[in-house]
Amino acid sequence: MVLLFASPDDDPVAWTRALRRRLPELEIRVYPDLGDPEAIEAALVWSPPPGLLAALPRLRVILSLGAGVDRLLEDPTLPPEVPICRMVDPSLTRSMAEFVLLHVLRYHRFLDVYEEQQRRAQWRLLLPRPPEATVVGIMGLGELGTAAANLLRGHGFSVKGWSRTRKTLEGVKTYAGRDELDAFLADLSILVCLLPLTPETRGILDRGLFARLPEGARLVNLARGGHLVEEDLLEALESGRLAHATLDVFAREPLPADHPFWRHPKITVTPHAAAYSLPESGAEVVAENLRRLRAGRPLLHLVDRARGY
Amino acid sequence: MVLLFASPDDDPVAWTRALRRRLPELEIRVYPDLGDPEAIEAALVWSPPPGLLAALPRLRVILSLGAGVDRLLEDPTLPPEVPICRMVDPSLTRSMAEFVLLHVLRYHRFLDVYEEQQRRAQWRLLLPRPPEATVVGIMGLGELGTAAANLLRGHGFSVKGWSRTRKTLEGVKTYAGRDELDAFLADLSILVCLLPLTPETRGILDRGLFARLPEGARLVNLARGGHLVEEDLLEALESGRLAHATLDVFAREPLPADHPFWRHPKITVTPHAAAYSLPESGAEVVAENLRRLRAGRPLLHLVDRARGY
Repeated sequence: MVLLFASPDDDPVAWTRALRRRLPELEIRVYPDLGDPEAIEAALVWSPPPGLLAALPRLRVILSLGAGVDRLLEDPTLPPEVPICRMVDPSLTRSMAEFVLLHVLRYHRFLDVYEEQQRRAQWRLLLPRPPEATVVGIMGLGELGTAAANLLRGHGFSVKGWSRTRKTLEGVKTYAGRDELDAFLADLSILVCLLPLTPETRGILDRGLFARLPEGARLVNLARGGHLVEEDLLEALESGRLAHATLDVFAREPLPADHPFWRHPKITVTPHAAAYSLPESGAEVVAENLRRLRAGRPLLHLVDRARGY
Repeated sequence: MVLLFASPDDDPVAWTRALRRRLPELEIRVYPDLGDPEAIEAALVWSPPPGLLAALPRLRVILSLGAGVDRLLEDPTLPPEVPICRMVDPSLTRSMAEFVLLHVLRYHRFLDVYEEQQRRAQWRLLLPRPPEATVVGIMGLGELGTAAANLLRGHGFSVKGWSRTRKTLEGVKTYAGRDELDAFLADLSILVCLLPLTPETRGILDRGLFARLPEGARLVNLARGGHLVEEDLLEALESGRLAHATLDVFAREPLPADHPFWRHPKITVTPHAAAYSLPESGAEVVAENLRRLRAGRPLLHLVDRARGY
């Protein structure tokens, strides 16, 4: 079988090595060296150039290197019949949960305030609170949201979760659908967005949502730039409705150098760094799906195109 | 019994309330309202003015509000026969371990690098590593160091520990004494100082120690300002031996507004904010020692003045 690897952010050498170890007979081609497109049956991709996948006439499966497939689905030339699999991989899940814990701890222990004070050489202690006093709300309770919620709960934080359909999670107060969104938001210290980007969730982090958070809440968006209405965030930071925001994802990536987020004193910008599939563990997931494809067995982590994830 | 409360940083109202709930008969006086000094048998203090304790002729115990008692012991007028007890309290231990985890995660996930990049509007991803790849060394394996090491280990980091006398800690590689210091330092990604400040440990974070760390290591000092030789830190940051430092404690606190640490791009300053005894849990420890004093039973967490902690 021939697999095409195409990603601007992942290391083709490490992925090739990790895949070969599991599937020695697999032929791996690295974009842009396609060779004969007719031979390619599988594509392992992150942000492939629009039209690339449509140019592979015998493609049988699209394997995403990322957990979210919104950018794939936005490509109007995407072959409509080819199944798409999300990346669900323990290293990716672990690195996301870890990044959530880091940013929750950072706000819980007032590092954003201390950084601001440092700029003014101001020494002022804010008494630490116990973690139970910090209420963290996770939007999105899939693979990643569930792992993050469990890690936070283990650390002692008060955790709430919101999702499209009802989920049950031990020790986490869960809310479902637009009807319960207000109750979910009402007492959050920190809101963490881990939603898939779909037509339903696009622009969900907007003025109306911010108005339902307590004054001085913090926002952490690790999902997609499309979830956030940028002007509404700037307004909420200006008014004090939100005290600070950490953004890892943006409508345009890389974030343009002249974008106001870079220089905003109440915004921390990270370069889409929250979660990442390490080749050593991600290759196992990919290899398993290729084995299944070859054997005609059902694929894992199939995307429902209508739902968007 | 009459107790004197004296601290510039702790809330006398909350402490009085929490102590009264446990010892309704206790009379609590809050500095500077001493009343008759002859009546005072116990003192609960943090950074009391030098000479204050010497002015209490019937003092039977000094209870520290902090885990470290170095500042108490520096007072040459300290009554030599009165026993001193350190604060050992679950809320203090928990908040210290939490602060260590926060700063280790922050370096592990390159937030210091991303903050620097944000100042230059630079988008550059550094691939996350698994936590096992980050080697954290804890100096000091007492109550606080042990709790921090266990929390880090639970999160998956590779943890090493160094102390004056040999300690054994499951899953932690431990080293003891000056002879084993080089081996302890040789491969650390992050060095965390949680040592007590004694004549032996004063100035231990110096040029000689930094030279034994790997190039680009990170330093987190949450113990005492006296552990650090300030000029040597500036030199190590300048040369790249150390990539970044987080300092919570300083030779002079509050850190003077004109101190170069405030404006150094590779130093994070926090205002002695790492660990704090919450009155609700700290009062339990204090009350237990007062009960023991009254009953003539051995006190808990007694300081060995010769050792310094």
